[in-house]
Amino acid sequence: MLSDRVRMDAYYNAIFENKHHFRGKKAVLDVGTGSGILAIWSAQAGARKVYAVEATKMSEHARELVKANNLQDIVEVIEGSVEDVTLPEKVDVIISEWMGYFLLRESMFDSVISARDRWLKPTGVMYPSHARMWMAPIRSGLVDQKKNDYEGSMNDWLCFVNETKNDYGVDMSVLTKPFSEEQRKYYLQTSLWNNLHPHQVVGTAAIIKEIDCLTATVDDICEVRSNFSSSILIENTRLCGFGGWFDVHFRGRSDNPAQQEIELTTAPSLDSSTHWGQQVFLLHPPFRTSEGDDVNVSFLMNRSKENHRLMEVDLGCEIRQSSGKLLPLFKNKFYIE
Amino acid sequence: MLSDRVRMDAYYNAIFENKHHFRGKKAVLDVGTGSGILAIWSAQAGARKVYAVEATKMSEHARELVKANNLQDIVEVIEGSVEDVTLPEKVDVIISEWMGYFLLRESMFDSVISARDRWLKPTGVMYPSHARMWMAPIRSGLVDQKKNDYEGSMNDWLCFVNETKNDYGVDMSVLTKPFSEEQRKYYLQTSLWNNLHPHQVVGTAAIIKEIDCLTATVDDICEVRSNFSSSILIENTRLCGFGGWFDVHFRGRSDNPAQQEIELTTAPSLDSSTHWGQQVFLLHPPFRTSEGDDVNVSFLMNRSKENHRLMEVDLGCEIRQSSGKLLPLFKNKFYIE
Repeated sequence: MLSDRVRMDAYYNAIFENKHHFRGKKAVLDVGTGSGILAIWSAQAGARKVYAVEATKMSEHARELVKANNLQDIVEVIEGSVEDVTLPEKVDVIISEWMGYFLLRESMFDSVISARDRWLKPTGVMYPSHARMWMAPIRSGLVDQKKNDYEGSMNDWLCFVNETKNDYGVDMSVLTKPFSEEQRKYYLQTSLWNNLHPHQVVGTAAIIKEIDCLTATVDDICEVRSNFSSSILIENTRLCGFGGWFDVHFRGRSDNPAQQEIELTTAPSLDSSTHWGQQVFLLHPPFRTSEGDDVNVSFLMNRSKENHRLMEVDLGCEIRQSSGKLLPLFKNKFYIE
Repeated sequence: MLSDRVRMDAYYNAIFENKHHFRGKKAVLDVGTGSGILAIWSAQAGARKVYAVEATKMSEHARELVKANNLQDIVEVIEGSVEDVTLPEKVDVIISEWMGYFLLRESMFDSVISARDRWLKPTGVMYPSHARMWMAPIRSGLVDQKKNDYEGSMNDWLCFVNETKNDYGVDMSVLTKPFSEEQRKYYLQTSLWNNLHPHQVVGTAAIIKEIDCLTATVDDICEVRSNFSSSILIENTRLCGFGGWFDVHFRGRSDNPAQQEIELTTAPSLDSSTHWGQQVFLLHPPFRTSEGDDVNVSFLMNRSKENHRLMEVDLGCEIRQSSGKLLPLFKNKFYIE
């Protein structure tokens, strides 16, 4: 939280430009308070009481920080998981910095939903109030680099198989297929953290998921399914994959709106990059595309069965050139690890 | 296992230069067989039966490999933890590649001890049969690099504390002490994997632990305590810390010895480095020493309470210069993570 100024500024402005949500005997719940910074700001903005829940030993630092800032009468740091915590009252605001890579990795929003359903007053406000996931076609040298890495790794393996046969009398070639699948998964099918330059985005960006933090259920976010179309905007370029990012907004609620709406975006940017960066899904091999081509994408993201904090993606992509010609369908499975 | 030729050669030679331990209706247990290579070699060396136990899904690959090498009648791959497995007979040989960084990290030898106590015949042989841990004083530029990293991190933190006070109205200086301790632990008190050049060893190496794999108990290896002395061998050099490594030997047993003793060493080496490298414990600040100085070291290693596969080390070091002058005692805690 602390070392990312874009993130800090968004939360700071969301709170201090909307003090009406905090002032006047309001109670606030901060889910996963970490160092306690959001709880402290909530108190400084005028909250009567702030419950700052933190599952890890960071709670001890949060407690120290609250005391050093002389807010121990307002901010109560509670060590525990928010699912188990009992508060003495319902709250007017739930604030949380719960967003993971590509919004949903880590599945932290589950805890916010649980807290909301148990502790938010019917008139309560969520900070942030809305979230969206985005995707856009991109070009990137990563596609060549990862292909090289994969091929290098397979070359090493084949040398090794040879050597093991000749020097150690064991034929390992039966493992070439599973080894290749593992390497392919690692180099070509695992999404990559990347700080994209805006010029790397070669087509229109599409919203693939919208979340109203006041009403979304865990079922709503377990699966993200989207069929979208993007138009290539650049003459004669490579389509090397897709970049995914998110934004969140602080809008209050319709019957108690923000005075000043704040946006926190993790879109490709020259001067406002965040620690979230973007997630990149690579296409092997890349396609040649040009201005006016349409890219039709089917996207399906589910939680991994082995670890519900990680994600698996089925991605299909079909290019209809401006001439009308349809290029062969690309389909692949990706892992957000 | 497979990509480290020093390791491969040692096990290969240990088995094939001592076939008398495997031939003649001998049964073998391979603890943690991984890809199955040691089990296959044992079968190729003439064993009647090899039980290859593997706790992970690697067992499926091992089974395929055994079959591809036409040894499925001899090698039986068993998926499960060796502590839970039931074999139909006691075995003549237990073979295992159980060594972690600095020998004992990962605490894999516990499983070998358990297997030995349950399944090795009273006349049985351990492969390897002996293990030793070594330490020696070293010089290394890592000491400067890690000091710089630590100081850079603290500078960033202090800037951040300033910024947070000025721009966001929160005083975080109360967290400077715990932050500094955390960074100190990370940069200066965590032992480092390193491939030392033999010239970096500046004093005599000492054995700090000897293990007879046939008789050692878990209690014997839980704690490693040693007071040793090392003589500096180089004129006017820096003592920057200590390097730790291990070797193992394949000697059979006194009443059934190896025909050809094999050694696998992970000592600093120009042309026979292993994936184990050495573990480096840095001294901050380094000492100036010279030929003839004596370094008296107290070393105590225990398993970490939070994770018994990791280790904690208390290291004390006192230098008696050849003039007789005693330099101030250095004491520090280290973490092998």
